[in-house]
Amino acid sequence: MEKRLQIGILGLGVVGTGVVEILAKEGQKIKEKTGVELVITKALIRPGEDKVDFAKQHSLQLVYDIKDITEDASIDVMVEVMGKIHPAKEFVLAALTTGKHVVTANKDLLAQHGTELVQTAVKNHVSLYYEASVAGGIPILRTLANSFIADEITEVLGIINGTTNYMLTQMVEQGMSYEDALAKAQELGFAESDPTNDVDGIDAAYKTVILTRFAYGTDIAIDDFVVRGIRGIGIEDIELAKTQGYEVKLIGMTKKVGTGVFAEVAPALVPVHHPLASIRNEFNGVFIRSTGIGQSMYFGPGAGSLPTATSVVTDLAVIAENQGDNKPAPQFVDYRSEKIFADPKDVFSAYFVAMELTDDPQIWQEIKEAATGFAIAYRELENQVTAAGKRRIVVMTEPCSEVQRHQFVSAVEKIEDTKITQIMKVMEE
Amino acid sequence: MEKRLQIGILGLGVVGTGVVEILAKEGQKIKEKTGVELVITKALIRPGEDKVDFAKQHSLQLVYDIKDITEDASIDVMVEVMGKIHPAKEFVLAALTTGKHVVTANKDLLAQHGTELVQTAVKNHVSLYYEASVAGGIPILRTLANSFIADEITEVLGIINGTTNYMLTQMVEQGMSYEDALAKAQELGFAESDPTNDVDGIDAAYKTVILTRFAYGTDIAIDDFVVRGIRGIGIEDIELAKTQGYEVKLIGMTKKVGTGVFAEVAPALVPVHHPLASIRNEFNGVFIRSTGIGQSMYFGPGAGSLPTATSVVTDLAVIAENQGDNKPAPQFVDYRSEKIFADPKDVFSAYFVAMELTDDPQIWQEIKEAATGFAIAYRELENQVTAAGKRRIVVMTEPCSEVQRHQFVSAVEKIEDTKITQIMKVMEE
Ligand SMILES: NC(=O)c1ccc[n+]([C@@H]2O[C@H](COP(=O)([O-])OP(=O)(O)OC[C@H]3O[C@@H](n4cnc5c(N)ncnc54)[C@H](OP(=O)(O)O)[C@@H]3O)[C@@H](O)[C@H]2O)c1
Ligand SMILES: NC(=O)c1ccc[n+]([C@@H]2O[C@H](COP(=O)([O-])OP(=O)(O)OC[C@H]3O[C@@H](n4cnc5c(N)ncnc54)[C@H](OP(=O)(O)O)[C@@H]3O)[C@@H](O)[C@H]2O)c1
Repeated sequence: MEKRLQIGILGLGVVGTGVVEILAKEGQKIKEKTGVELVITKALIRPGEDKVDFAKQHSLQLVYDIKDITEDASIDVMVEVMGKIHPAKEFVLAALTTGKHVVTANKDLLAQHGTELVQTAVKNHVSLYYEASVAGGIPILRTLANSFIADEITEVLGIINGTTNYMLTQMVEQGMSYEDALAKAQELGFAESDPTNDVDGIDAAYKTVILTRFAYGTDIAIDDFVVRGIRGIGIEDIELAKTQGYEVKLIGMTKKVGTGVFAEVAPALVPVHHPLASIRNEFNGVFIRSTGIGQSMYFGPGAGSLPTATSVVTDLAVIAENQGDNKPAPQFVDYRSEKIFADPKDVFSAYFVAMELTDDPQIWQEIKEAATGFAIAYRELENQVTAAGKRRIVVMTEPCSEVQRHQFVSAVEKIEDTKITQIMKVMEE
Repeated sequence: MEKRLQIGILGLGVVGTGVVEILAKEGQKIKEKTGVELVITKALIRPGEDKVDFAKQHSLQLVYDIKDITEDASIDVMVEVMGKIHPAKEFVLAALTTGKHVVTANKDLLAQHGTELVQTAVKNHVSLYYEASVAGGIPILRTLANSFIADEITEVLGIINGTTNYMLTQMVEQGMSYEDALAKAQELGFAESDPTNDVDGIDAAYKTVILTRFAYGTDIAIDDFVVRGIRGIGIEDIELAKTQGYEVKLIGMTKKVGTGVFAEVAPALVPVHHPLASIRNEFNGVFIRSTGIGQSMYFGPGAGSLPTATSVVTDLAVIAENQGDNKPAPQFVDYRSEKIFADPKDVFSAYFVAMELTDDPQIWQEIKEAATGFAIAYRELENQVTAAGKRRIVVMTEPCSEVQRHQFVSAVEKIEDTKITQIMKVMEE
């Protein structure tokens, strides 16, 4: 009955040290519940990292060569929390191939190479878990995998990047500029020194890829959909949205339309009474629309050492729990639906469109005719001359299709000295 | 590999018909995922209920005697969705004893007789699941059982009664009176014709008992803690709280203080930026504070035919998934901690206290002295003469212990013509 699983961990950074600490604290409870003792025996670090005291304190052997883990038959599970694609991918494949279960927090890796990794896990009869990769401390992937089995998910909307949500909250609540908000996020350690992946929506896009798999079993790639971040977003648009009863949030959206999937990462207008509107600062939230439950939302910290490490250790506890089953090692989720994209004609949304044009009624007339030509109804939210002597016009459209939107945008872009400075989907209540 | 589980269902009311419909819709998906076909073969109804067409449509045999289910060896699982304690309890015990798994949505039953039922399930090597019993469509119990195994929960705060939350939302947003809000809730079918269990907090208390088991493994009874509902709550207190940045919500609280548990159901002041403050109308939310994840919240519909039935069918799918394990039938959660209550000296909270007294400075002086005597610091939020010529004084205290609170309340109640018209805990951000 009494069993012991030995673990090798790659990386003793923010998450890695948290994993060691959480397991030291909660290991006994997990043993009582599962009958399995989880013990981290080895940690891979870089030569030169000063982890000797930490290792001594937790009885870890420090190693510098991955083979000391992947080729050690006494290690049953590998935890990858070093990040980046290479060599993490090769290390994870090596572990899976030698019959070790793997737990990772690496969203980049799972979003880009998930299929290959999962196939390798299945072939080698081991489990691959990555709860921490989306919305850090929120148990969203396990919830999607386990608690929606009797339901049909139709839409997932996620505030899944803490840095940008922190920035948007500071901009709207403190009237901060984009630059000041970014500086403050960096100061507080939310944003990396190179914040590109956060502010350009790439981090959110990786998570949207993973959420799409868990929601629909469909394997999309980051190149399959539009990804826009919050770089250069204007405080004036955020404030105007607010007067209309909306918060601007960076949303990772994945929607089932007919038999197809529509995904997008972009800033969007969320009605103030929508549950996502109340997600402030660095917190994350994942909102799910489904035919059975209807609306549900899961809120919590998207990052941080302890929350993220807690998700990793929960994955380890699930592996412990599965020991002794006479069934194949369970996979986190089955995904195997064909990649079918929604027809853009069938994907509808209202839009907030901010435009800057030469202050000439003739030009505005042309834009209005373009809208009418593509059957887009709208109302004006703002129409005024800017300090630079341009005319700024902001409209809110009635729901129109992706096709209509694209037609309208390209028509406007063809008009001289006219540009769309911001276009955002308007979410439903 | 291909397996079939036969199900008998008790009750074809709001939830029961939903269960039959959801299973008809999602049964194929569950079979693909688990390899097990779930088939409802029999439904127990009352003689006289007109369910013949429904039964024909879903190939159900209608039965009127529980023995047709509990003594039918071909039935593997019983679903109890008829409600009330008797005879539901006897029926569930009979099913468990004859080796059938049981799924139920019955919070009254689980709160009052959970221990006996769980022991019977363990003894007979069957599973007893009841996800739908707390917060209908929110998969909160499974989340607590599965996703907090590597974490320590310190506090659970739930908006777990949709009727009262609907009423409070209408009162604050529409300025409706308590009576009008109740009438509207009844009209919309949220509140029963006898709304006692909802407005007096009893329904929330049952759920708090169940949440306490899942959070701490501790088995408390409804008589072990204070239960107050929203009956007669004053719009003036709700509005005053609002001006101070708080929403009034009926909160089921269960807290770990030292090694003990403190539970309470009562209206409370929730800061507007707290995630629970945004739970409007009939929705439910369960907020969890834990040492690892920190803060998380689960939001969704607390009731309704489809959401509740989805939770029931998810429980059935989990039973299907467990088939073929060579381990004892899993229990929903292990609870076995001793019942230890927190020492009231160690339970701290700030309070909103509204008082009505004779308009005499001497009396107010006495109250102030009582507060000082019990070392309660406070600030005045309101101090004015009412239409009836009484003085209404509302204060917000600094955090004080349960003991101080009790001492102060009894001192004030001893003062002639003085009463505390409302006392509410103030939740932390
Ligand atoms: N931090 C969070 O809140 C959070 C939340 C969710 C998911 N994640 C994910 O968790 C993973 C780890 O994040 P983190 O924040 O813990 O990063 P981190 O603090 O930078 O830690 C990574 C550690 O791994 C080491 N490392 C990198 N490559 C290595 C190699 N080839 N051999 C040995 N050691 C190596 C790094 O050393 P050097 O510093 O010398 O490179 C560093 O000590 C990432 O995939 C991240 O996306 C993090
Ligand atoms: N409705 C919700 O949204 C919701 C949410 C969470 C949990 N629940 C729980 O789910 C359970 C069912 O609720 P519900 O809303 O579906 O109630 P319901 O609509 O009243 O349905 C119960 C059905 O069971 C029948 N029944 C009662 N006792 C019976 C007996 N001894 N033999 C045969 N049939 C019997 C009732 O018939 P009569 O009408 O003739 O008594 C009725 O048709 C309750 O435990 C409730 O607390 C409900």
